[in-house]
Amino acid sequence: MAGNTFGQLFRISTFGESHGAAIGVILDGCPAQLPIDLDFIQSELDKRRPGQSKITTQRKESDTVQILSGTFEGKSTGTPIAMLIPNEDQRSKDYSHNTDIYRPSHADYTYDAKYGIRDHRGGGRSSARETAARVAAGAIAKLLLKHHGIEIFAHVSAVGRIIAPNLESSLTVDQLLEIREENIVRCADPATAREMIECIDGIRKDGDTIGGKVSCIIRNCPVGLGEPVFDKLHADLGKAMLSINAVHGFEYGSGFSGSEMRGSEHNDIFIPGNEAPKTLTNFSGGIQGGISNGMEINFTVAFKPVATIMHNQQTINAAGEAAEIKGKGRHDPCVVPRAVVIVEAMAALVLADQLLRNKSSKLD
Amino acid sequence: MAGNTFGQLFRISTFGESHGAAIGVILDGCPAQLPIDLDFIQSELDKRRPGQSKITTQRKESDTVQILSGTFEGKSTGTPIAMLIPNEDQRSKDYSHNTDIYRPSHADYTYDAKYGIRDHRGGGRSSARETAARVAAGAIAKLLLKHHGIEIFAHVSAVGRIIAPNLESSLTVDQLLEIREENIVRCADPATAREMIECIDGIRKDGDTIGGKVSCIIRNCPVGLGEPVFDKLHADLGKAMLSINAVHGFEYGSGFSGSEMRGSEHNDIFIPGNEAPKTLTNFSGGIQGGISNGMEINFTVAFKPVATIMHNQQTINAAGEAAEIKGKGRHDPCVVPRAVVIVEAMAALVLADQLLRNKSSKLD
Amino acid sequence: MAGNTFGQLFRISTFGESHGAAIGVILDGCPAQLPIDLDFIQSELDKRRPGQSKITTQRKESDTVQILSGTFEGKSTGTPIAMLIPNEDQRSKDYSHNTDIYRPSHADYTYDAKYGIRDHRGGGRSSARETAARVAAGAIAKLLLKHHGIEIFAHVSAVGRIIAPNLESSLTVDQLLEIREENIVRCADPATAREMIECIDGIRKDGDTIGGKVSCIIRNCPVGLGEPVFDKLHADLGKAMLSINAVHGFEYGSGFSGSEMRGSEHNDIFIPGNEAPKTLTNFSGGIQGGISNGMEINFTVAFKPVATIMHNQQTINAAGEAAEIKGKGRHDPCVVPRAVVIVEAMAALVLADQLLRNKSSKLD
Amino acid sequence: MAGNTFGQLFRISTFGESHGAAIGVILDGCPAQLPIDLDFIQSELDKRRPGQSKITTQRKESDTVQILSGTFEGKSTGTPIAMLIPNEDQRSKDYSHNTDIYRPSHADYTYDAKYGIRDHRGGGRSSARETAARVAAGAIAKLLLKHHGIEIFAHVSAVGRIIAPNLESSLTVDQLLEIREENIVRCADPATAREMIECIDGIRKDGDTIGGKVSCIIRNCPVGLGEPVFDKLHADLGKAMLSINAVHGFEYGSGFSGSEMRGSEHNDIFIPGNEAPKTLTNFSGGIQGGISNGMEINFTVAFKPVATIMHNQQTINAAGEAAEIKGKGRHDPCVVPRAVVIVEAMAALVLADQLLRNKSSKLD
Repeated sequence: MAGNTFGQLFRISTFGESHGAAIGVILDGCPAQLPIDLDFIQSELDKRRPGQSKITTQRKESDTVQILSGTFEGKSTGTPIAMLIPNEDQRSKDYSHNTDIYRPSHADYTYDAKYGIRDHRGGGRSSARETAARVAAGAIAKLLLKHHGIEIFAHVSAVGRIIAPNLESSLTVDQLLEIREENIVRCADPATAREMIECIDGIRKDGDTIGGKVSCIIRNCPVGLGEPVFDKLHADLGKAMLSINAVHGFEYGSGFSGSEMRGSEHNDIFIPGNEAPKTLTNFSGGIQGGISNGMEINFTVAFKPVATIMHNQQTINAAGEAAEIKGKGRHDPCVVPRAVVIVEAMAALVLADQLLRNKSSKLD
Repeated sequence: MAGNTFGQLFRISTFGESHGAAIGVILDGCPAQLPIDLDFIQSELDKRRPGQSKITTQRKESDTVQILSGTFEGKSTGTPIAMLIPNEDQRSKDYSHNTDIYRPSHADYTYDAKYGIRDHRGGGRSSARETAARVAAGAIAKLLLKHHGIEIFAHVSAVGRIIAPNLESSLTVDQLLEIREENIVRCADPATAREMIECIDGIRKDGDTIGGKVSCIIRNCPVGLGEPVFDKLHADLGKAMLSINAVHGFEYGSGFSGSEMRGSEHNDIFIPGNEAPKTLTNFSGGIQGGISNGMEINFTVAFKPVATIMHNQQTINAAGEAAEIKGKGRHDPCVVPRAVVIVEAMAALVLADQLLRNKSSKLD
Repeated sequence: MAGNTFGQLFRISTFGESHGAAIGVILDGCPAQLPIDLDFIQSELDKRRPGQSKITTQRKESDTVQILSGTFEGKSTGTPIAMLIPNEDQRSKDYSHNTDIYRPSHADYTYDAKYGIRDHRGGGRSSARETAARVAAGAIAKLLLKHHGIEIFAHVSAVGRIIAPNLESSLTVDQLLEIREENIVRCADPATAREMIECIDGIRKDGDTIGGKVSCIIRNCPVGLGEPVFDKLHADLGKAMLSINAVHGFEYGSGFSGSEMRGSEHNDIFIPGNEAPKTLTNFSGGIQGGISNGMEINFTVAFKPVATIMHNQQTINAAGEAAEIKGKGRHDPCVVPRAVVIVEAMAALVLADQLLRNKSSKLD
Repeated sequence: MAGNTFGQLFRISTFGESHGAAIGVILDGCPAQLPIDLDFIQSELDKRRPGQSKITTQRKESDTVQILSGTFEGKSTGTPIAMLIPNEDQRSKDYSHNTDIYRPSHADYTYDAKYGIRDHRGGGRSSARETAARVAAGAIAKLLLKHHGIEIFAHVSAVGRIIAPNLESSLTVDQLLEIREENIVRCADPATAREMIECIDGIRKDGDTIGGKVSCIIRNCPVGLGEPVFDKLHADLGKAMLSINAVHGFEYGSGFSGSEMRGSEHNDIFIPGNEAPKTLTNFSGGIQGGISNGMEINFTVAFKPVATIMHNQQTINAAGEAAEIKGKGRHDPCVVPRAVVIVEAMAALVLADQLLRNKSSKLD
């Protein structure tokens, strides 16, 4: 109940602080016999790790993952898969100056108030470093989904007010991935990507940060995933996304703009035919009544700007006295390029969980 | 795991279909000795029930609640509180014409695909009628929160493109409630309310429907609620809201607009002083690192337009053949006036649950 | 977390007090399309209800069950199945004399201490009347198991020191049931049954009560049920049985006598052959490493004597002052004849749950 | 749901196989600010590790525990506590001869059938080595209980037919511990201990194994722990014990002998007085209605003989063909001396969990 576990049947429990010995995850419920491709897991982590490009933080963490249990001769055994990512850079940091200062819009104050104890070395448990554990587990979820033909793709759809066009539906996920990975901001539209990179680089030079959005699609999702009435597929996706650091909003299908539409324009009309029903439009975002309908699932996640900026800021200490935060060190000017793979990982975890849960929906 | 349970320590399980004998809820985990005010529970249900005004559906359901267990001499006993709301109008309906037709943007197709069986009498389990059970349980959650001084208030903040101004922070929750309940659309700004009512009435005459938004604030929330890293307070609120019928989006604090901001403008600066820390701005929406910080919590929920419209629509039957839905009967032209109390109920359930969970955060 | 829910995927939540309006249960997770035989559910309840014979309590409760949701045209729909059993005899009771007296070896004191409030009308929630809800849900679990060919049979294997011989392995479950139901004590050995009935009748005339045992077998259980390491099949069965009122012990396979054996005599040797492995002996009780191995599962449950006796007893009131309980009214001289169907119900619930959980054990 | 998690609020998830890189545990829900005494945790592990004495297996594992997260400056922080115990002896083993042989009364066959894959290196996940992770987490549970004044003590109460006398109630837990740790069989009665050691030593020389019992008491347990109706304190204790390798039975209070008693002798009569109610006898085992009543809690656990014996045994391979297991290597002739601390650990985990759960039983 303490909040470090996600999922029901395909379930992860993460642990670790940013400046402790290691972070890690236990994945329980992965079906036996799934080939576990360690290189793939590492390649996913590489997309999230710091120091990838000039527009991410320059901290040094190789984020090298070890599998401690749950596999045998390259396959899952049905027992818990524990993965460990040692922290390499934790000793070199000196956070002693922050011992009792509450940084603005960080979790310093709330953790201190809740637990009455504060690990003042960086963000401790509240650091986004924890998401590396999610990415490792999410990579295994992706392997399970791939076995079932399900594809997930996310990219940066906005940096500040720079908005990418909708994804080209004629492109395959492989093609989209190739385009996305050709630029350091991870936007599937090269022209927008160039603008975004320029923007972030300017923000970085200002010592400031900026928000953005990540949009995600899921293709080939079987009909029937999602458990009414509380564990609707989009409700689980929403919770998954909102649990990622810095996320302030989630919408799927027509989203917020759907609130401005009329029913007569929003309804997705079925196309008659012999195959599985398709709809003319997809304002439902691939989910109806909380259950996937076989159309492409799509959603968008809004990230606030990172709170760590390189400016001096007024703040308080634990006694409530005025204090100043000095802008220094290394930071992410915009979190979304590294968040793309986190969004995909959390989506994969939700899908894998709902896939297993759906096995009991009707009699064999 | 089948999705009909919400919450961990203050936990509800709902049951019932729109045209069965009854709907209801079991609330497990309500602390003993809480005065259970049946009149208050009923008054909450009255704000959700059909037939309240000209801008809601004209169906006849009194939604009279009975408590079957868990109370003794007006107080909770610590045992499960079961509440029953008999369906009164269920026999008179004739849904036989819909037996094998999939209504557009309803859950007919997805339920049929998932379960291989379809209760074709109205929406069955997917009907928003299920939310009456949530409102009943949410009313008890509100009683618990009131005991702890916590206040929740929601209102209609948008109907289509008609947007209400931000809530007046100088008004108390009691004052806001009084203003809100003076108009049938449940908007806390009387001038906007008039526009909204006019809009909905026009939509209704067109036989169409329209989307909208509900915004909610929580005042006097103690610092420390929310369980990192997955059960962040806003992640639980987001899931709660996204589990409500027709919801397509959730944002809190700066929300989607936060994705366009810079860190230097978004950071909420602490005000020095002897009291519990406050911040100059509240882009964090009262939650930092997933934990309440004592500031006002605020969030907004986007509802799509109701799928049932009074127009004839092309669709398909279970065999995939073209079919037509005839526009007839009674419907809600806009769901948000009745959804206000559902949003409050779900928020209250999340808060009550996190309040109990927080009891174990540190050593006694 | 408040303890009124049992099971993970095939999950029940019970509610209700002995002298409230009704008791009931929500069963969530029953796969869709299962034929729900209401007559069978009622016939199971009839085996548990009071007043069946001279050796049970003479209270009058018909225990008539109603299904409120989750079925359509005689089949489960995949949505929660809510069942209600109204209390009929609750108003006629006069428990006012017991308001603040703690009955010996009842739950009066502990409930009062835990919740600070006491429903003094009979046992309230601690009454074994709650098990009627379990029997109703267990009946549906049995229907699911029957669909998969799994059979459960329990009988009274001891009353006080009168011990029944082991079940005849050459008899089918149907034959055992027929023999068992021919006597009011529900022992599958007619000669022992006569002794038991005589014993209980004598105890009843003394105004006393006596303990006993129920033994249960499960046949045709597929190999593979049980989730290591904590949710071993026998651990879940043990918890299920220990959650039944008055149970003080559980053993399976060789049980307590296994603690006296040597490995060389206890090991169950596999028989070579082309079919699914069988063993020469079955000290493992059909479960190895917490997982069913295809052999007959067997276990035994020990019940203490009922605490309500017809003698005057010294006790205390809530103030700690000496008080006297007058022996009067109607009681069960021995609980095991009515407990047989409760044991079967709880076993069926565990098996149904593990059957669904096992669906995710390996890749499709 | 995959069974590797135990507890609700004080919750552990274990991972690891006997011959993988490591075993370990995540403890989630430990309240912040608890002093975490690493030496104590290690000393608990030392009581379980192999090679302690001539009557345990001679395998070499130091079972050195590392804490990876969740503590800061010697105290718990409220975040997950991850502990790792590297396997040291795993590479030296050669289990290749066992690749497809099913050992009698082991979990080889059932794991293979359930998961379709078999980690043939020793027991894999089914090995009792997994219980080291439980002992590490149980040690932290003990630290929490100690903070609340609760004491747990277990000892070997039977080896085969050699039965220890009941524990001397005049001795403190510290005194009992001192007596117990003076002999290698861990029985609190020195004379019986000598008999037991002699018995086990003889069994060992025969290459055979023998079963036994562990009895446990809990003192100073506050009134009110246990959550009716399913999570009764003794039901959770029972499940905890039955989840330990080789356990075949559990009884508490009067246990199986209670089934032979009359109500008039079994009822525990309250003693009038001003203090918290006490009872003259304690057949209830400190638990009434599933809730602790403040009296000493007591229970007994039956262990079957270890399946690994040093005799040659007939068995089958995965193809069902006859095969022979050669008796060789190192084994535990009797598991109970090492199981004492496992029983205590599991009891501590149950108590810690119920202690936290009880915080919500009534209104503050």
